[in-house]
Amino acid sequence: MEQVKNKQIVLKNYVNGFPKETDMILNDSSTINNKLPQGSNDSVLVKNLYLSCDPYMRIRMHETEGAAFGTFTPGSVVRLNIRKPLVGYGVAKVIDSSHPEFKKDDLVWGETEWEEYSIIKSPMTLFKIEHTYVPLSYYTGILGMPGMTAYFGFYEICAPKKGEYVFVSAAAGAVGQLVGQFAKLSGCYVVGSAGSKEKIELLKNKYGFDEAFNYKEEHDLNAALKRHFPKGIDIYFENVGGKMLEAVLSNMRLNGRISACGMVSQYNLEQGDGVRNLFLFVTKRLRMQGFIVGDHYHLYPKYMEMIIPLIKQGKVCYIEDVVEGLESAPAALVGLYSGKNVGKQVVVVARE
Amino acid sequence: MEQVKNKQIVLKNYVNGFPKETDMILNDSSTINNKLPQGSNDSVLVKNLYLSCDPYMRIRMHETEGAAFGTFTPGSVVRLNIRKPLVGYGVAKVIDSSHPEFKKDDLVWGETEWEEYSIIKSPMTLFKIEHTYVPLSYYTGILGMPGMTAYFGFYEICAPKKGEYVFVSAAAGAVGQLVGQFAKLSGCYVVGSAGSKEKIELLKNKYGFDEAFNYKEEHDLNAALKRHFPKGIDIYFENVGGKMLEAVLSNMRLNGRISACGMVSQYNLEQGDGVRNLFLFVTKRLRMQGFIVGDHYHLYPKYMEMIIPLIKQGKVCYIEDVVEGLESAPAALVGLYSGKNVGKQVVVVARE
Repeated sequence: MEQVKNKQIVLKNYVNGFPKETDMILNDSSTINNKLPQGSNDSVLVKNLYLSCDPYMRIRMHETEGAAFGTFTPGSVVRLNIRKPLVGYGVAKVIDSSHPEFKKDDLVWGETEWEEYSIIKSPMTLFKIEHTYVPLSYYTGILGMPGMTAYFGFYEICAPKKGEYVFVSAAAGAVGQLVGQFAKLSGCYVVGSAGSKEKIELLKNKYGFDEAFNYKEEHDLNAALKRHFPKGIDIYFENVGGKMLEAVLSNMRLNGRISACGMVSQYNLEQGDGVRNLFLFVTKRLRMQGFIVGDHYHLYPKYMEMIIPLIKQGKVCYIEDVVEGLESAPAALVGLYSGKNVGKQVVVVARE
Repeated sequence: MEQVKNKQIVLKNYVNGFPKETDMILNDSSTINNKLPQGSNDSVLVKNLYLSCDPYMRIRMHETEGAAFGTFTPGSVVRLNIRKPLVGYGVAKVIDSSHPEFKKDDLVWGETEWEEYSIIKSPMTLFKIEHTYVPLSYYTGILGMPGMTAYFGFYEICAPKKGEYVFVSAAAGAVGQLVGQFAKLSGCYVVGSAGSKEKIELLKNKYGFDEAFNYKEEHDLNAALKRHFPKGIDIYFENVGGKMLEAVLSNMRLNGRISACGMVSQYNLEQGDGVRNLFLFVTKRLRMQGFIVGDHYHLYPKYMEMIIPLIKQGKVCYIEDVVEGLESAPAALVGLYSGKNVGKQVVVVARE
């Protein structure tokens, strides 16, 4: 057993408003044993390879009552000997294991920590990686949590039917790009919104959305949606919330379904935007279902059965925005909230 | 065939804000034939006995885009020879019929008009009354549209489980009083809100709610709900919307269900109240389903199978607020929006 260096990204303080790169600090003085401690049970020691930047992580940066996601523990510099890096999804390699289901050299994906090496105790969300002929980083995206989110939210909650009208917000992101492609595979008409010209091009020319618009260039979201959906929207895959949700409600069709996995426009607000037209739920017989994908991982094998052939046959594509090095992680994460990333934001900590 | 007098209640003009008695006028110069015209098909001529005052009727008093409910046709005094009374639910007796399913002297309930006699063409919503040992007026309430609303919204949408925590707003109204009793029959803990001391007494002592509170006496709805639901709310039967909905969302438990059949607090507002905490749908995995009971009348026979024995055995009770005479109808309807009615608001046009 020997001590090795273990760089970490630690939250400095609870965050208000938009997170900044300086809300996180790099601790480069931490170390870790390269073996699990004697007598450890059901634990794995992993080397982190790819870390995933996901919008929901913002929620863990402030103290919230009854939080669905645990809050990150902020550590001031003097307390850095207490190891509390950020927690997130990632792809890792098992270095040592006292868990019956994992052994040395297994590749895994699931919840890990923002550092070079992590001990994961009683892993709730750790999956062994079986298909390695795809980029390993895909397990932070299309083959990981965002993929399952798109799959569960679109197929299970929205129950799409051929010919239906689908709208996806944050459509060029880790989840949205898949929802759009799933919608096309289901024979739906799909429009996406995103925040740059480059993303709009991707939506139309790469992912095959029927139409796309840049919400930053629209003065009136309601009018933009009316233009793209003269007959209204059957399915809304909700990623942003607030004003967009209000505009969408005005354009939903009878018996419309809304799957809500996140509302990224709301995370940095002290007080959420007020949505004033909820009575439309009654008159239009709408259903909105919020979900946390972690509740539904029992469906992961079913999703893999569907998605692996689609990837092999080139019927879905997946775009990642990759940065190198753990020290690049804070900027990459912060970039999500201004829409800087194009595609799934991934941080390479180490290549295998 | 002879002409008979046919008093009517007509909407004067489209309504903004709270409706007033004077927004409706009594037309006492109208007449009607006491037989259907020659060659009529699939029509019934009825004598209206009981008319139902229902909160949703407010929605038909203004012009709305893509309205789920048709808008009442306002008629100025000079146009009163064009017969356009308000439309609503009621109990009636068939006087003449060219419809194969209805014959003279049948008692029926369903959509009729606010007048003494009505011709109902191609009735979409007209049910023959079979059980006549209960008060006929019950077919405007527990055995009619509000009963079906409570049944469908509570059992089908909310899928209650024994021991769950249920909150009902507008709990002393036509629908709420039933939802509370259904919740108790399902082994749930149920709290209701209403707007007067008298109603709170009824909720607790007559309908068997576990607790009840007067929302008008609460400065902080969120605190009131926390007091009554220290462990949170599993099921919310939504009748009011706006600020109450926002407070409820803050108090929902994981996997909570919200059935929305109306949002009476919003009907008289130019702009709906903004609900600012919809992100809780995600973190708490909430589901909200709006519905219009008219879509679900195929379940009416199933509901009757359940409710008739419960009435016979005295296991559910039903309170009505009855006024006499068609001329009393405008005041009775308007009273709904200030909460004047105690129980289901019924207007007696004629006793059989």
